[in-house]
Amino acid sequence: MLEVYGHGGDIHTASAKFGLAPEHFLDFSANINPLGPPPGVLEMLGQALPSITAYPDPGHRGLVSRLSGMLGLEPECLVIGNGAAENMALALLAFAPAKVGVIQPCFSEYAKLAAKFGAEVIEVFGKEERDFKADPDQVVELISRCGLVFIGQPNNPNGVQYGLQELKSFAEAGERFNTVIVIDEAFIDFIPVERRQSLEKELMAYRNLILIRSMTKFYAIPGLRLGYAVAHPDRAAAMRNKQVTWSVNGLALLAGEACLSDNGAYGRDTIAMITEQRGRLRKGLAELNCRTWPGEANFLLVRLPEGWTASAIQARLGERGILVRSCAMYPGLGSGDIRIAVKSPEACDRLLLELGDILERGDS
Amino acid sequence: MLEVYGHGGDIHTASAKFGLAPEHFLDFSANINPLGPPPGVLEMLGQALPSITAYPDPGHRGLVSRLSGMLGLEPECLVIGNGAAENMALALLAFAPAKVGVIQPCFSEYAKLAAKFGAEVIEVFGKEERDFKADPDQVVELISRCGLVFIGQPNNPNGVQYGLQELKSFAEAGERFNTVIVIDEAFIDFIPVERRQSLEKELMAYRNLILIRSMTKFYAIPGLRLGYAVAHPDRAAAMRNKQVTWSVNGLALLAGEACLSDNGAYGRDTIAMITEQRGRLRKGLAELNCRTWPGEANFLLVRLPEGWTASAIQARLGERGILVRSCAMYPGLGSGDIRIAVKSPEACDRLLLELGDILERGDS
Repeated sequence: MLEVYGHGGDIHTASAKFGLAPEHFLDFSANINPLGPPPGVLEMLGQALPSITAYPDPGHRGLVSRLSGMLGLEPECLVIGNGAAENMALALLAFAPAKVGVIQPCFSEYAKLAAKFGAEVIEVFGKEERDFKADPDQVVELISRCGLVFIGQPNNPNGVQYGLQELKSFAEAGERFNTVIVIDEAFIDFIPVERRQSLEKELMAYRNLILIRSMTKFYAIPGLRLGYAVAHPDRAAAMRNKQVTWSVNGLALLAGEACLSDNGAYGRDTIAMITEQRGRLRKGLAELNCRTWPGEANFLLVRLPEGWTASAIQARLGERGILVRSCAMYPGLGSGDIRIAVKSPEACDRLLLELGDILERGDS
Repeated sequence: MLEVYGHGGDIHTASAKFGLAPEHFLDFSANINPLGPPPGVLEMLGQALPSITAYPDPGHRGLVSRLSGMLGLEPECLVIGNGAAENMALALLAFAPAKVGVIQPCFSEYAKLAAKFGAEVIEVFGKEERDFKADPDQVVELISRCGLVFIGQPNNPNGVQYGLQELKSFAEAGERFNTVIVIDEAFIDFIPVERRQSLEKELMAYRNLILIRSMTKFYAIPGLRLGYAVAHPDRAAAMRNKQVTWSVNGLALLAGEACLSDNGAYGRDTIAMITEQRGRLRKGLAELNCRTWPGEANFLLVRLPEGWTASAIQARLGERGILVRSCAMYPGLGSGDIRIAVKSPEACDRLLLELGDILERGDS
């Protein structure tokens, strides 16, 4: 198993296990934009390297100003974090919920962080027939019992979105029961704008609503760590108040500003490629008797053919320099479930080819 | 006042206030190695920039292995952090002390982080006649009353060390009263090895002892964020258990390994320059009727001549592109106290010249 730290993208563990240098893997286990960072960002960082001899701006003022303008929200609504994960931790530290609700299967950090900071984790389970979304009533009931509830939108690992009306009913339940609703939109940028289901525009109507965004996935800078949260100014201030000074490094702040300066072509190209390749992958996987769900993000939940386990496929593909994420440890999923990122046409071809070869040879 | 976030080195606030680009200040308010990063580190980072498209190693294995060998400690004793500050936060989160002891004046984050994470802060005050060190009896008494005590070694802002026997008595009191003793050695690398007072070699004798080191100051990489803690494996594990996954970015990990690969010349040159320039600064400041204390680190606590305030000097120097740290807000210090970093001969010359000119003109 490669997920010794509970996550995909661990090319260091893969390297130790399969004896290939970390940078030589074709990594479908981390959901990173295959286009790499926007044009010019690496060059800008190269020129900015001497600035690492100065402290980062503890107030993140440049990036806050940029995001504030872009989102049409007051700067006080923003929390810049060391990846989306720090923002999740800050929400837990700031609001110290006794009970934290999660909808399984979901990103494992929700429950891990909640337990880390002393909360009891309450689980409900999504329904397979709803593509692993929970029934709205289940979610509202969960909200009524918890101090804070995490909702992935789109959810990881299935990539499916709740509808806007469902989200509103969750946010309204958050107000009614005084429960903090944390909507994790780490992957929402990969969805075409017209299909995105987000309460971003209604944020100020819900004092208990927090949206968390990642900048590491869409802009392909996971090594730098960058994310942000938007919320009512009181909520955002409470989160910032739990933050360790300088937790966001200076290069991440610069990269964030540069990524948001892109003229839009990079974003459109990314979404077009992901949409097309996700379709191709679903078709190709179906031909290999693998089941997928209609996820809208840059990854797919895949159920292997009867008799195959995630760990066997992960090992076979790993030997061939290809990494996939086992989903065997996700509550609500099974030993034959994996998650694969959507990557470039060439990478997707290679995955389908190698996976097809392994499945054809048998020996599961 | 430049310390709107409670710290020196805030060139972003200085830039807004004095209308000069952040990189054009001569910054004596942050205590960073004036030699810059070790030779080759910036070049290595330039080549490594494409690696930011991969997640950092959540286990920090490369750097842990390097530090473990260097320190002669098991890897399990190490906690790699996003700067020394994250390690302080992890200690507070892991051991959740009801009362946290600090010896004023000291690094403001001790009390700020303690309050942030719900502890009551108990202060004792160093004695001016002991160069702002507290009496050992005071410290032991503080330890007896607290769940965790922070001790700066050398202490910031006075730069003075406790002696080894004093440190042992503190560590023994930590065992006797079951109090976690966090010794902040963020600046100890600037002190010649033969003068360093550290319990590093005796670490395993004290289950409640934690040493925290910074790599951002000596290696001049504050923008990247990197520090570590060493402690008994149980204590270190408890701290790691509170850490947010990937809190240390990938470039910081690479830089850390590269910095520790230096052949020793960089370290010797740094210490030689700091020792010499600190001496020159003390002499030059005395000639300007400024009082200093016998600090051994890469900064000096300075008391301005009668009638001058830190805020006035900070403003006058700031207009001339020079930043110093006001110490007016340190409990136990006064409105005429500042802290200055020890920098290159040219920088020190310029500071003495400009400060001399300002003091001579009067108009305090």
